[in-house]
Amino acid sequence: MKVLYRSADRTIIRFDIGEQFPQILADWCEKERVQAAAIVAGIGMLENIEIGRYDGKEYITEKIEPSSEILSLQGNVSMKEGKPFVHLHVSLADEDMYARGGHLFNGTVSMTIELVMLELSSKFVRIPSGGTFWRLDIPED
Amino acid sequence: MKVLYRSADRTIIRFDIGEQFPQILADWCEKERVQAAAIVAGIGMLENIEIGRYDGKEYITEKIEPSSEILSLQGNVSMKEGKPFVHLHVSLADEDMYARGGHLFNGTVSMTIELVMLELSSKFVRIPSGGTFWRLDIPED
Amino acid sequence: MKVLYRSADRTIIRFDIGEQFPQILADWCEKERVQAAAIVAGIGMLENIEIGRYDGKEYITEKIEPSSEILSLQGNVSMKEGKPFVHLHVSLADEDMYARGGHLFNGTVSMTIELVMLELSSKFVRIPSGGTFWRLDIPED
Repeated sequence: MKVLYRSADRTIIRFDIGEQFPQILADWCEKERVQAAAIVAGIGMLENIEIGRYDGKEYITEKIEPSSEILSLQGNVSMKEGKPFVHLHVSLADEDMYARGGHLFNGTVSMTIELVMLELSSKFVRIPSGGTFWRLDIPED
Repeated sequence: MKVLYRSADRTIIRFDIGEQFPQILADWCEKERVQAAAIVAGIGMLENIEIGRYDGKEYITEKIEPSSEILSLQGNVSMKEGKPFVHLHVSLADEDMYARGGHLFNGTVSMTIELVMLELSSKFVRIPSGGTFWRLDIPED
Repeated sequence: MKVLYRSADRTIIRFDIGEQFPQILADWCEKERVQAAAIVAGIGMLENIEIGRYDGKEYITEKIEPSSEILSLQGNVSMKEGKPFVHLHVSLADEDMYARGGHLFNGTVSMTIELVMLELSSKFVRIPSGGTFWRLDIPED
């Protein structure tokens, strides 16, 4: 990964072939002490991807092995159990260019990802909220 | 709904189960006198959703009842006939994680929505522009 | 096209019927000397669209002729061979509101596009990186 631009306003990061995504972004946030951020764009390609949809009780997951175009990435960074947690939803194109997507658990960068993140001068947390759902929140003072 | 972060630069809002979306956002914009904004991300889940596509003359609409992952939300806030109007396009995952989407008329938050909005120190308006199309514009001085 | 809002922070542009997209945006960036930007949202409609997916060696392209709702646009602006280059991935709804998408080569605006761009006080470049892949980077000083 390479940080191409970083101001108080916004951060542009390029991820490279073979990197585990979004784990590598969570690790970077931990190193840089980023405790709250919005992820507003991300395009590129992933392979060996695991996505999921929540059925009200738990995530139904699916593996997508072929290298796939990322059509969109949106989400945020918060603190969950003391560590930065990257919550992302992804849309991916299949071989006929139909889009599939869901919660992104992980994937391997297969070409590049060009990510746009808005770091926030705040702290977001994940609060257990029944079942496996952790709501996004701010700390109670 | 809960505003988790708000600066001149950006606003992060969490919407909660049972809320009518995006009407609740339009109502909040009216209360806060937000007259122009860009909506650049939104993930979570909706149910009892109505989406549409414009066929050149009118919207063809469809109801999607099951609780569905929101893959992406993009749009803006402008003033239409004196009130804040939220224009959003949505991508939703079906039960096989294929994406469907269109113009979002309304839905009920079924888990959460984590929204990223850029408020603008301006006023956007919707101007009738033939048929049912209202273009996004700025007021003539 | 009409620039509806432009600050150091963000730029909102409306594109209009018949305009060639994203070429018109690249031309505007050249005129305005924009050498780095993030594109974080774009909704509206396109027709006579060419999209592609990268198969590891080259782009497999496909034409989509009908006027289609744009569900999302994400990408960036960089300098490639001395000119602004707009890299965008798009999701489009087909007639059954299923989403298709990929790398956006070009399309004709068929109703409007409402675009959100974050201009950056920097210069991004595209560097040949093997085969037809040009990675996003910053100039070496």
